[in-house]
Amino acid sequence: MTQRLHIHLVSDSTGETLDTIAKAALAQFDDIDVVRHFHPLIRSEADLERTIGDMAANPGLVLHTMVNRDNRRTLERACRRHDLPAVAALDPVTDALSSLLHQEAQARPGRQHVLDAAYFARVDAIQFTIAHDDGINWENWEEADIVLAGVSRTSKTPTSIYLANRGFKTANIPVVVESPPPDKLYKLTHPMVIGLTTSVSRLVEVRRNRLLSVGQAPETNYVDEDAVKRELAFARRMFADNGWPVIDVTRRSIEETAAAIIKLAQSRDMELA
Amino acid sequence: MTQRLHIHLVSDSTGETLDTIAKAALAQFDDIDVVRHFHPLIRSEADLERTIGDMAANPGLVLHTMVNRDNRRTLERACRRHDLPAVAALDPVTDALSSLLHQEAQARPGRQHVLDAAYFARVDAIQFTIAHDDGINWENWEEADIVLAGVSRTSKTPTSIYLANRGFKTANIPVVVESPPPDKLYKLTHPMVIGLTTSVSRLVEVRRNRLLSVGQAPETNYVDEDAVKRELAFARRMFADNGWPVIDVTRRSIEETAAAIIKLAQSRDMELA
Repeated sequence: MTQRLHIHLVSDSTGETLDTIAKAALAQFDDIDVVRHFHPLIRSEADLERTIGDMAANPGLVLHTMVNRDNRRTLERACRRHDLPAVAALDPVTDALSSLLHQEAQARPGRQHVLDAAYFARVDAIQFTIAHDDGINWENWEEADIVLAGVSRTSKTPTSIYLANRGFKTANIPVVVESPPPDKLYKLTHPMVIGLTTSVSRLVEVRRNRLLSVGQAPETNYVDEDAVKRELAFARRMFADNGWPVIDVTRRSIEETAAAIIKLAQSRDMELA
Repeated sequence: MTQRLHIHLVSDSTGETLDTIAKAALAQFDDIDVVRHFHPLIRSEADLERTIGDMAANPGLVLHTMVNRDNRRTLERACRRHDLPAVAALDPVTDALSSLLHQEAQARPGRQHVLDAAYFARVDAIQFTIAHDDGINWENWEEADIVLAGVSRTSKTPTSIYLANRGFKTANIPVVVESPPPDKLYKLTHPMVIGLTTSVSRLVEVRRNRLLSVGQAPETNYVDEDAVKRELAFARRMFADNGWPVIDVTRRSIEETAAAIIKLAQSRDMELA
């Protein structure tokens, strides 16, 4: 039987951390119908009151990362009053850091979103990545941290964007049998070039859906099994000839592909160091 | 005095949750030089051994989200052996869910990255957002969830990408005094249109840096204070005339701007419901 569960995510910052934590923890349970109440940027008394009203009207688990001490106390008192289970999701980590560093945690909401050098580097990575999607502006590839190569619909674009959000300048280039990539691709020194591949059947399926969704009849080489097989073989040969690491995305989510790429980039950096 | 701290982030999934948690918790402490050891996708014994080797060689705080029970036990035993403080970062939330739902947590690594409908909707949102950056393909704006309008360099693109990662199909359109946007913009019903603005001085500074970084002399209207002032006034009038909510991005990070936008979108949805 499916259980209904209200979850209140209350944060005086963006609520991004809470959102990620809740998603990861909820994934370990079955048969629940989760109603998610997102309360980011709760900083004023009026914000707090509205949030507490919603909690009382929809009782359930309260997860919070309230950093401001007064607001935290108000929230926790309200949870007790309404008999709601509340978890301060970051406390175990903050406490461990506090005792290791012999330092009390500062009560500064939104402090992780400070506009520092790392922040601007990340914004730069996003701009770079968008400007180097799908083989465009290849003259600047040398500036990239990562270059992804793969045939059409091997999730190059979303993977690039995800990597950009993690701070990696990422370019991607489609591998097309009839049109060889610019020579520059084979001569890159700074970026790590990575080949993405997938299974024939999966690719045919994804492409067929793609064609249907744009209203085209799926009867070209683009979705022909033999043609797709040749295309993937061509790409794999290119990857092998150049000694590029290859990731099979068949059963991987974007996040998992990206994590595998970051892992590869790290081991290369360690070897170079 | 700056303290050096090694942090090991060990996950049998992508490590994304850990990364977010560590960032948020570390932001509450001062004067630390953090050396971050990222160990995602730790699933095999060989992976574990390598990780434990690195932990022993660089002692510090171990944060983990190991879901597989055997690997978790091995890791925790290694931490005790090497006398390293270890925190299972998701445990408080998982435990609270477990007792609320009367259900034990499943030991399924990477379960939040299951390729479900929400996942594909998010990938779609990313594709849509990239295809609708900077006013392109405005014919499809009605399909967007959010449309951002603002003059050049008000962080429309990175904010759009961030919102896409959160599952919102986002289009953005530059407000240019000399070239009015397509009429369609004023007639949208599904998307929420939001105006982004910023302070004159901040915008001049950002644009000046931009011109320098692309090797152009900063002596055009693009960075002239009076011209920029007129440009921003023009945009603000457009936002007001159409009753679009406005966000001032001057001292906001992308994440904070996005959180404010999500909050606006939620309150509108509540009003419509």
